[in-house]
Amino acid sequence: MTAVELSVDLNCDCGEGFGAYAIGDDAAMLDIVTSASVACGFHAGDPYIMAATFEAAKAKGVAIGAHPGYPDLSGFGRRAQQFSLGEIEKLIAYQIGATQGIAALAGCHLCYVKIHGALSHLATTDRDVAQAIVRAVKSVDVRLEFLAIAGTHLETAARAEGLSVAREVYADRAYTDAGLLAPRSAPGAVLHDIEAIADRALAMVAAGAIITQSGKRIEVGVDSICVHGDHPNAAAMAGAVRARLEAAGVKLAPFARPRT
Amino acid sequence: MTAVELSVDLNCDCGEGFGAYAIGDDAAMLDIVTSASVACGFHAGDPYIMAATFEAAKAKGVAIGAHPGYPDLSGFGRRAQQFSLGEIEKLIAYQIGATQGIAALAGCHLCYVKIHGALSHLATTDRDVAQAIVRAVKSVDVRLEFLAIAGTHLETAARAEGLSVAREVYADRAYTDAGLLAPRSAPGAVLHDIEAIADRALAMVAAGAIITQSGKRIEVGVDSICVHGDHPNAAAMAGAVRARLEAAGVKLAPFARPRT
Amino acid sequence: MTAVELSVDLNCDCGEGFGAYAIGDDAAMLDIVTSASVACGFHAGDPYIMAATFEAAKAKGVAIGAHPGYPDLSGFGRRAQQFSLGEIEKLIAYQIGATQGIAALAGCHLCYVKIHGALSHLATTDRDVAQAIVRAVKSVDVRLEFLAIAGTHLETAARAEGLSVAREVYADRAYTDAGLLAPRSAPGAVLHDIEAIADRALAMVAAGAIITQSGKRIEVGVDSICVHGDHPNAAAMAGAVRARLEAAGVKLAPFARPRT
Amino acid sequence: MTAVELSVDLNCDCGEGFGAYAIGDDAAMLDIVTSASVACGFHAGDPYIMAATFEAAKAKGVAIGAHPGYPDLSGFGRRAQQFSLGEIEKLIAYQIGATQGIAALAGCHLCYVKIHGALSHLATTDRDVAQAIVRAVKSVDVRLEFLAIAGTHLETAARAEGLSVAREVYADRAYTDAGLLAPRSAPGAVLHDIEAIADRALAMVAAGAIITQSGKRIEVGVDSICVHGDHPNAAAMAGAVRARLEAAGVKLAPFARPRT
Repeated sequence: MTAVELSVDLNCDCGEGFGAYAIGDDAAMLDIVTSASVACGFHAGDPYIMAATFEAAKAKGVAIGAHPGYPDLSGFGRRAQQFSLGEIEKLIAYQIGATQGIAALAGCHLCYVKIHGALSHLATTDRDVAQAIVRAVKSVDVRLEFLAIAGTHLETAARAEGLSVAREVYADRAYTDAGLLAPRSAPGAVLHDIEAIADRALAMVAAGAIITQSGKRIEVGVDSICVHGDHPNAAAMAGAVRARLEAAGVKLAPFARPRT
Repeated sequence: MTAVELSVDLNCDCGEGFGAYAIGDDAAMLDIVTSASVACGFHAGDPYIMAATFEAAKAKGVAIGAHPGYPDLSGFGRRAQQFSLGEIEKLIAYQIGATQGIAALAGCHLCYVKIHGALSHLATTDRDVAQAIVRAVKSVDVRLEFLAIAGTHLETAARAEGLSVAREVYADRAYTDAGLLAPRSAPGAVLHDIEAIADRALAMVAAGAIITQSGKRIEVGVDSICVHGDHPNAAAMAGAVRARLEAAGVKLAPFARPRT
Repeated sequence: MTAVELSVDLNCDCGEGFGAYAIGDDAAMLDIVTSASVACGFHAGDPYIMAATFEAAKAKGVAIGAHPGYPDLSGFGRRAQQFSLGEIEKLIAYQIGATQGIAALAGCHLCYVKIHGALSHLATTDRDVAQAIVRAVKSVDVRLEFLAIAGTHLETAARAEGLSVAREVYADRAYTDAGLLAPRSAPGAVLHDIEAIADRALAMVAAGAIITQSGKRIEVGVDSICVHGDHPNAAAMAGAVRARLEAAGVKLAPFARPRT
Repeated sequence: MTAVELSVDLNCDCGEGFGAYAIGDDAAMLDIVTSASVACGFHAGDPYIMAATFEAAKAKGVAIGAHPGYPDLSGFGRRAQQFSLGEIEKLIAYQIGATQGIAALAGCHLCYVKIHGALSHLATTDRDVAQAIVRAVKSVDVRLEFLAIAGTHLETAARAEGLSVAREVYADRAYTDAGLLAPRSAPGAVLHDIEAIADRALAMVAAGAIITQSGKRIEVGVDSICVHGDHPNAAAMAGAVRARLEAAGVKLAPFARPRT
């Protein structure tokens, strides 16, 4: 660590239940993270869960993001689907607007947008899709910031449109030397050792770089660490990442500017 | 008619298709009406149809409203359902926000809100529901105007919250002496004679009053005439109403203030 | 207990997840119960979960029932909705047929039908609804048995149509002296003390009667005990009920005849 | 035409509305066709429309088929989606079972299965998908016949599983010399001239062969002609095909054996 104070955001997906269904322990995660990416009712979430999540995030000083995805409740937005660029624009605009509506009702401001699941995966490698997404965000509200997977078309497209961009890396996912997430099916693609995850998260923040499976550093810049909220020991892992960062003197704070 | 120039709005429901499905001839109706109440994706409509409807309305100078309803595609929002007041607030806020998102993408401004179907029917006679709806509208955007069935709790609640209110009467529906729509099942509840409909519409505008089945006048004020777009000769009926009003010197114009 | 061997069925709702969502610990419950009422994809469940649930039930010798409800995923079938009798018939027939299709694929036989949630609640007190439901069951497959809340219109209607009927009582719900479930909102309506629940379950089986809050016995006949699978200590409670019954010499077995 | 009496089936998709939405004029089509492939509630259709369609088909002596597709109401089943083979089996089994349930309620028998839209398109060229579909059909009811696009994996897979197979050709779609439907985007892929369509339909039936765009004959066997019900002059086109066939002495009759 240098004498310059480092600061980083910690984000996780929240509000991913639906009706009587819940996924993840949002209450525990909202005590740890600094930004909450809230499902918008298409791949998960509903108006009531969204409102409750915003109220909880507001009470805990957590910045609020919209986390739009494919209209695919049965596949949790992870199923590849065929949508035109024009359809993608409308899917995104609808979900962001809906999220702003609920945020207004809950007395909050929507600060940022992060894309979910299979649509995000597609956009990291398909520039046209990334551009369609970013066009939609900008059309709805140019003040929204964009949380992009560092080093992908999502980051490039958002910058090109003039959006304020934050770059995220994943705490518990291995990276290939191409700077992409190793496919979940590959051996070692998902990290489970909480201490190792916390160590690597700190190393990536300190270096401002992705650290790949081979140990290579790719200097993408790191504004946020993504921790997952939908597995059993999610809060323990997120808590360990936060504790390691704080112990090293890294300040945890939302990347997004407060809005009033 | 007096020497004072009368002006009235003509509104109809639009964008009530879904996916490959269409209801009504929106293109024909948008040539006749001055305000379009666009379905928001819950009882009808989807992000693509909403965008296309907004673009068409904008091109024709028609004011755009959100027309939220119950989440009930299979019942077209006409099925009574049990939602708490808190749930109704969120349903409304979500749909209005989503509509603003699509409107922004289409380069339009959302001017007003009108409630659809069974939820609207409930709100006309349940003050708490009317208030929940109005609270949600105001929370999302206090500049939105509210198109209310004249003389109902929707009108009262919207005024009490300080929203700008327009009052509508129905061109093709009979009214009881209580000032309520006669139930569809009652004889004569739905008018079919286009000339009689046009005559009565003009009479209600000229009088600023509901004219009931018995001939009684209830002076509610009339800012807008609602014509239905979802039956076979909808455009002929709407055209006849418009022609009769214009022939009598009534100016047709949106009730809503333009927004920029 | 008398010298005559008592036998009773133990049933619970299963397969009530959807996509990535789960409710309850089906694996644990299927080790305890003798009949599984499986959600049919309308209020919960999907084709993949249904198939997996049937395969697990078959492997454990648990009898399989269809558990149809309102088309209301967001309300888990607990929201009152307005359907005509003709619509209810079709809702039931569709879900039972779908369940038979999946059961056939999984190499199982559907043995019985039990109605879910708000539709069941309505049918206990509305004879016309109960009759519509039973007509639909009989039309689809007259060999299906019917698991009815003991002493309600569901039981009467099913008998009148000639279906084989089993009568269930609820392990963890208090009964009024009218023989109806005390409303959930009433004090003491839901029992939490596992030992007390097990005691009462045994007492009801031994007496062949509902035992009400005041201690009154209503001799309805008891073929099955319903235990709920959707709360945290569900398996502990179901296991205690089973153990108490077995310790008293009551045989646990499906009420439904095996089908081949 | 030879002295041997030729017989052919005429099939169209029916019941493709949803709730308040309608597509096509089923009443007119059911007066012309001999087999109706009825949507099963996933890409289109609902329990009420299915029942009404079965009742109408039964009254007119039209054979009834299930027409399952992807769960994709918003895309009308035409959107490519990613499902595993196991998921496809369950999707098909669920829909066929549901259709049998409604058919039983309507006092009809389901005679056959035909696959819809993007799933059908995939299965014509993906043998594994075709086999998964056919396995599901056979598991649910081995007596169901299978209406396959002539000369595709669907036909081969159904034969291999021992299902009774009928082969269909399309009245209004051009074929490539590979025996596949020309993509809709290709020039001339969709035929519009009703007389030309009727001529070609007769020629294909008489030859028992697909006649391609270049005039080549591919002798696949022709048991059924598919006419589309979802465009404006559908009934006129179907009527012309039927009249041409009858004028040439071809008997129109369902391919499926009656079931009782």
